[in-house]
Formats: sequence, C-alpha cells, structure tokens
Amino acid sequence: MARSALTDDVEVVNVGLPMFADAVRAQGRPVRHVDWRIPADGDLDAVRALTVLHGDSAAAVDEANAEVVRRLDQGVPTLVGVVPAGTVVPGLHERMILHSGPPLPYAEHCDPLRRSMRAAVVAEDWAPDVEEAERLLAADDVLIDAANHHDTVVPMATAIGPSQPVLVVENREGGTRAFSPVNQGPGDVAWFGRDTGAAIARLRLLAETVGPAIGRILDSAGGLDVLALAAQGIAMGDDLHMRTQSATNLLARTWLPHIAALPDDQRVPFAEYLAGNHLFFLNVAMAAAKSLQLWAEQVPGSSIVTTMSRNGTTFGIKLAGSPEWFITEAPPVGEALYYSGHGPETSARDIGDSAVLELTGMGGPAAGGSPAVAAFLGGTMADAAAATEGFAAITAGTSTRFTLPPMGFRGTPLGVDVRKVVELGITPKVTTGILHVDAGTGQVGAGVATAPLACFTAALHDLAGRQARTL
Amino acid sequence: MARSALTDDVEVVNVGLPMFADAVRAQGRPVRHVDWRIPADGDLDAVRALTVLHGDSAAAVDEANAEVVRRLDQGVPTLVGVVPAGTVVPGLHERMILHSGPPLPYAEHCDPLRRSMRAAVVAEDWAPDVEEAERLLAADDVLIDAANHHDTVVPMATAIGPSQPVLVVENREGGTRAFSPVNQGPGDVAWFGRDTGAAIARLRLLAETVGPAIGRILDSAGGLDVLALAAQGIAMGDDLHMRTQSATNLLARTWLPHIAALPDDQRVPFAEYLAGNHLFFLNVAMAAAKSLQLWAEQVPGSSIVTTMSRNGTTFGIKLAGSPEWFITEAPPVGEALYYSGHGPETSARDIGDSAVLELTGMGGPAAGGSPAVAAFLGGTMADAAAATEGFAAITAGTSTRFTLPPMGFRGTPLGVDVRKVVELGITPKVTTGILHVDAGTGQVGAGVATAPLACFTAALHDLAGRQARTL
Repeated sequence: MARSALTDDVEVVNVGLPMFADAVRAQGRPVRHVDWRIPADGDLDAVRALTVLHGDSAAAVDEANAEVVRRLDQGVPTLVGVVPAGTVVPGLHERMILHSGPPLPYAEHCDPLRRSMRAAVVAEDWAPDVEEAERLLAADDVLIDAANHHDTVVPMATAIGPSQPVLVVENREGGTRAFSPVNQGPGDVAWFGRDTGAAIARLRLLAETVGPAIGRILDSAGGLDVLALAAQGIAMGDDLHMRTQSATNLLARTWLPHIAALPDDQRVPFAEYLAGNHLFFLNVAMAAAKSLQLWAEQVPGSSIVTTMSRNGTTFGIKLAGSPEWFITEAPPVGEALYYSGHGPETSARDIGDSAVLELTGMGGPAAGGSPAVAAFLGGTMADAAAATEGFAAITAGTSTRFTLPPMGFRGTPLGVDVRKVVELGITPKVTTGILHVDAGTGQVGAGVATAPLACFTAALHDLAGRQARTL
Repeated sequence: MARSALTDDVEVVNVGLPMFADAVRAQGRPVRHVDWRIPADGDLDAVRALTVLHGDSAAAVDEANAEVVRRLDQGVPTLVGVVPAGTVVPGLHERMILHSGPPLPYAEHCDPLRRSMRAAVVAEDWAPDVEEAERLLAADDVLIDAANHHDTVVPMATAIGPSQPVLVVENREGGTRAFSPVNQGPGDVAWFGRDTGAAIARLRLLAETVGPAIGRILDSAGGLDVLALAAQGIAMGDDLHMRTQSATNLLARTWLPHIAALPDDQRVPFAEYLAGNHLFFLNVAMAAAKSLQLWAEQVPGSSIVTTMSRNGTTFGIKLAGSPEWFITEAPPVGEALYYSGHGPETSARDIGDSAVLELTGMGGPAAGGSPAVAAFLGGTMADAAAATEGFAAITAGTSTRFTLPPMGFRGTPLGVDVRKVVELGITPKVTTGILHVDAGTGQVGAGVATAPLACFTAALHDLAGRQARTL
C-alpha cells in the first residue's frame, strides 16, 4: 500500500455537502460536518437584500426586532368583554361581512369561505336563504373585507357580520385592542365551510345566547389575563392552535361560579355549548395574539412578520412597520391525517387567520410540548420537538411566558424574522384543520401547512429597499 | 516498560463495585460494568426467602402476579353515586369514625389525625365542641377504625363519620365496590389536621350540599369511567396524586351541563366548591384504585402489594391473598419543599391512604409525565423520569392505560412486587403533602416519603412461609 502524504491521524472538517463527510466517516476517521448551505438557495437578488439587512442596516433592524419581541413577550392582553361586532369593531360597515385571509373579490374566494359568508348573511337576516345570500354577495349588495383590516382575526373559514359577538381583548400597556368572534365549536358549523340550517342556527345561538352569557360572566368575574391562562394550557400539553383543550378546561373551572350564577335562559345552553367545545379557547388566544401584533407592528424598520393569514385562495404576510401585504397562492395542507374517504383531492387549501398564533409563540412553536400535536407530526415527542426547532431557526427571540416541559422547560420561539426565513429557505409550518374543497361537508382532516416562500422573499426586498433609502 | 501478559486490546467486564470499572475507564480501555449488588443487602434470612420465591415457587408466584397485574390494568371502575357513608360502607358502626392508615388506639394517633377525628365527631353532632369530642374519643365512647377495613380509602389526615358523603365506585367485572369521601379542598380543612370552626363547617357543607349535588349530577350524567378520565389527566401532566388539576378541570367541563341544571340551593355553592378545589379528582382516583385492589387482593399466593397506608404514626402494607398487615413506624417526608417558616422539625410524619395510587400505576409511577411533580424531585423532567424508573425496577407489569408522553408514551409501572423491593432494597417513593406536627395549622409543605423496608421484608417472609407450606 502506498504511503499517504497525510499523517496517520487525519481529522476532517467538511463544509457544505454532507456526502464528503459521510465518506470520511465511513473510513472510521473523525470528521466535523458544518451544515453550510448557499444563502437563499443562491438567489442573488435575495442575497443582495440580505447583504443590506445584515450589513449597514443590521444594527437598526436588530434593535427594531428586539422591541417587537419585547412587545410580543411582555404585553398582557386582557379579555374584557363580549359585544356585537357592529358596536365595537372599527370600520365595520353596517352591511359588511369580515372574512379570514387577505382581501379578495367574492368571486375569487374558495368554496368553504363563500358558503360561510352566505351563512353569515342569512344569520344577519339580510337574506331569507343562502341562494339569496349568494345573489347579494355576488352583486356587492353586501360588502366583504379581510377581518385583519379591522383589528380582528377569525379562524378557518369564519365569516362574521355586525350581529356576531366578538371577544374584546385589550393590551393596555400598548394601547391596542383586538377582536375575534366566539368560536362556533365542532360539527355542522359555518367556520368549517358549512351553509346548512344548523350552521346558521349556531351563528344565531352565539349572537343571542352564548355571546351575552360570556359578556355577563366577564362582568361578574372581571377581565381574564389570557396569556397567563394560555401558558398553563401549554404546560398541560396544548399548543393552543390545533389543541386548546387544557386551556378551555381550566377556563371552564375558573368561570364555574359565574356560569352557575347566569340567568336560567342563558345558563344551560351556554353550559352545553362550552362542554361541547374543546376549541373555545382558540379564538380567545387569537384575539390576544392580535392585540400584541397590533402593538408590535407600530415598530418601524423591523424584519419580523406581524400578520400571516390565509383565505383558502391566497396567503399573505405583513412586516412590522409597513401596511403592505405580500401575497401569494395559498398552499395545500400536507403531513395530514384525513377522515375516512378523504384525501388531498377533496381538500381545500390552507385557510384562516389563526397563524397569528405562530407569530406569537403558540401553535407550531409550542408543538414540542404537545403530545396531541405530535400525532400529526410523526407520532413521537421528538417529531414534535423538531417543529419547535424549525421555528427556533427562523425567529428572533424566545418567549419567557410559554415554556415546554418535555424540552427542558425552554421558551417557545418568538418573532418570525423574514431575513432568517429567506436565508435558510425555511418557512413557518402551521398546524391546522382541513376543509372539504367544494362539497360543503365541513372538516375532512387536519395537518401541517408549510408557508410559501415567495411572499417572504417579496417582503425581504421591500424592507431592504426601505432600509437602503434611509441609509 | 515491562511487557504485560495481556494482549494490547484489553476489554473488561466488571461485576459489582463500580470503582474497578472507573479505574479501567480512566485508562481509556473499553469496560462493561454490571451493576450487581448482594441481594437484600446480604440479609441471609431474606436471601433464603427469596430463594424459595424465585425457586420452586417462582412459577406459581409469577402466575398469581400476572393475574393481579391483569386486574389492576384491565378493570373499569365506574363512579356511580355519592351517598352518606353510613348508608353504604360495610361495617361502619353508627357511632364510628374511619381514619387513614393502619388501625391504632386513639391515644397513639398523631396530632393532625386526632384533630381531624375530633372535627368529624363535632360535624356528626355527637359533641358540641372539640373538647367534648376529645373526651368521647379518649373514652372509646366513639369507636374508631382504619378506613381500609371498610373498603374505604381516605387521603392525608381525613376522618369521616356516617354522615359524610362517599364516592361509590364499582368495578363490575370484578364484583368489588370501594368508597372514598368527597375531597375537602385546600385551606382550613380537617384532612390537613385542622379542628377549627371553619374545618367543621366545611365537613357540614360536604354532607349537606356538595355530596347531594354530585349525587344528582351522576343521576343525570350517568356513571363516570374514572380511569379513562384519569388517563387523559396523566396525558395532560397530572400524576393524579400530588397534582390532579387536569383531570379535575376536564371533569368540570364534562359535567358542566349537569352542574348548570342543579337546583338553586346546590348550584352556586357546588360551583364555588369545585372551582376552588383542584384536588377534587384525588379522592375519585383513590376510590377507583381501591376498587381494583379489592379485586386484586383476592388472588392467592401473589407477591404484589395491594394495600399501602399510613396514619402519621405507623406505616402498613398487605399482600394480595392475605389479610395480614405488616406494620412499622411511619417515615418522615423527605425531598420536601416547605412553606416559609417550616421545616422537618415542624412536620408530621407520612400520612394517608393515598399510596393506593402508587400501587395502581398513578402517583410516583406517573411522575415522569408531570412537570408539576418534577419541581419536587429536582426540577427537571429527567428527575421526574427517575422516579418512574424507580418504580419500574420494583413492579411486575406496565399499565396499558396510563402513558407518559415525555417518556416516549411508555406505560406507567404497575404492581409493586415485594420480591423486587427486598432484593434491590428499593421501596416505593410516595409524593405527598406535609402537615404541621402538633400545632393544628394545616399543610406546611409537600415532598416525597420513602416507604420503610422493614414491613416489606416481613411480608416477604410471610409469603415465603406460606409458599413453603404449600410445596
């Protein structure tokens, strides 16, 4: 055997493609692999934008981001009341329906959201049936707008008119206030893309009984520190997006004396509603998250995403400090578990404003603490932890409020940084339900939607352009 | 350097003391350490008993143990009602108080349990005040007995008379039925060793309002599959001994419509009671566990412990298939966190029948899934997992019902085998509260009590003797 020019003890540092490291390792020699990749997958325009934002602008962006993270981590959203949307939501026209996702003309909306809007129009008594509701919506006789334009967030295919009760959440330190409707619960419901008589009746029950009952409970119990309760839910295995059962249960016991004191006509219907709705806390958490994002988005020059929202047709984000939407096509929901007889071909695309949770340290960032979410991500707690790690790679900070016991009580990743998203090519993964694409039969499964990269790249360019102008 | 008689590649197997393995490892050579110890710490009598039980009797004992584990794992205890103890508990004399732990004359009981018995006597209206109650108890004008003698289990220093409401839990397949009083809640309460007016008033509230309310809820909601709900609580971070909050919260939401339908005079007081008592499920889980142990203890010739109970003075166990108590002194509670101003010198010794949970796959065996319990065991989830592993070393089976997400969804250890306890010198560790030793001021902390070995060794000898006679 020929004598090598190398010493006997070769130790290797490999940068980039792992196959070279694997080859050295196969020969039994020590090797340290550096997992380096070409930034932004070699997109030279993106590299130039990153060069601006990591170069002369880096200190200013980092400072802005630190303030955004501080607001998201330290703000104390308080649920103070429940009132009809029309009495409190800014800019809600008296004949307007608010919907999830970026704005879009009615005709371009997906089938589940159109059905939900029709159900909302009937529940408002603007039309006697869904056929007439369709006519009014198609003719712009009823206006529609993105809920996010009105400080409001709505999950899945939720659509609401002025009579629907909204949770009012105040962030007093930040001077912001956000809204979310009362969750409609599982089953035959409009937010799952149903426009049946039962779905419409459920909207009326919320307006006539459930909303007023919660309002009365809050009057008697006082305001609720939403994220203090949310943190307890996370410690009990909720991610607060796909699973909100522990937080809902805790809230039910906390409010129990006030529920017991409700008047006869509200008490039993509200109790049946809450006992049957393990998702109640979802909308409460969303409104709280939105109240913090409304504060965070006032910080100029940040690279952190403060809006991320889908309507089943388009997917849009906004950065702190800018009113601009960056919009692309809504992705399908992958890594899914389907109800029997369903699959990708019967599934609508990703929908809902609930991804505001992922921007605020809940949902995907909290997956590593949730056995229930693990079932959708491969089955083991290590799979769930990998989802949290994915967010850690693209976020600017860590929650001091939400901690994950199975991951050594580490805080959840907080504040999605568009620079890291584009540089690494890793976009947020959102745990979510799946609706039928066009049959109006409601939920058909649940899974993980991977956000599309294009809108993050567009947002990065916009920020780099703004920064270049200020230098 | 002198040439060794050994080859260059020495690999070592070390058995016993680890220091030899450490020395080899320090020289950079491979070593496999076998953690062998002298069985039963060299107690030759115990080794002889183990020789019987691992020798000719092994197959019979293993078969009996497998049946015990099957009953503990597969039985379905159902909470069917709540009625006054005097109407249902077998052998409960009309002027008798049941207490935790092995039987003991009144004068030998610890201060907290004597106070609790006095409070119970006043709550029964047998005495106008605790001074007169003390006179009646000291004079045997009121009888006392171990709750365990009456198919009943009571936590901490609980003492109950015939008027106190008991949870009735049926194990239909096994034909057994067990009882536990309704939990008194936190604060100024008799089960924490208080004999104040408030503690007595709480017992009366349970008898007059809370017990009847739960009975009515069960009439309306139907029986409760206790351990199905318990398993959900464990998946949400309860160990179901030190922490029962998730199970209590889930039960509150499950029962909510039936609570809302209670009559006016029960509804608000019951709601306030349940909202303020995160320990409600403790007694429910204990009664369910006892109903399974009553079935398991009918199996002859088993080495599995089916009763483990403490009264603050003595600590006793029983084996399946034998009515015999093996009793020794109650241990102190160690590894404790104390309320400000308290410590070992102000603490009563280990007390309560709640260790029935540790015999049934809950409590310590479930510690590895409980972030709240981890705080008492060192702070990390690895510390909590070590408590579960400690039980795994001394148990005969694994629960298929209770699984621990942070430990890869493994089942909790089930069925404490006295052979393994004595052979390894590892006794069960029980997570528990701590009461003031003599001031009647209630709870002063919480910690971990390590069961004393002596009663396990005595039980082992008794079983070996019984087995030797049948060979």
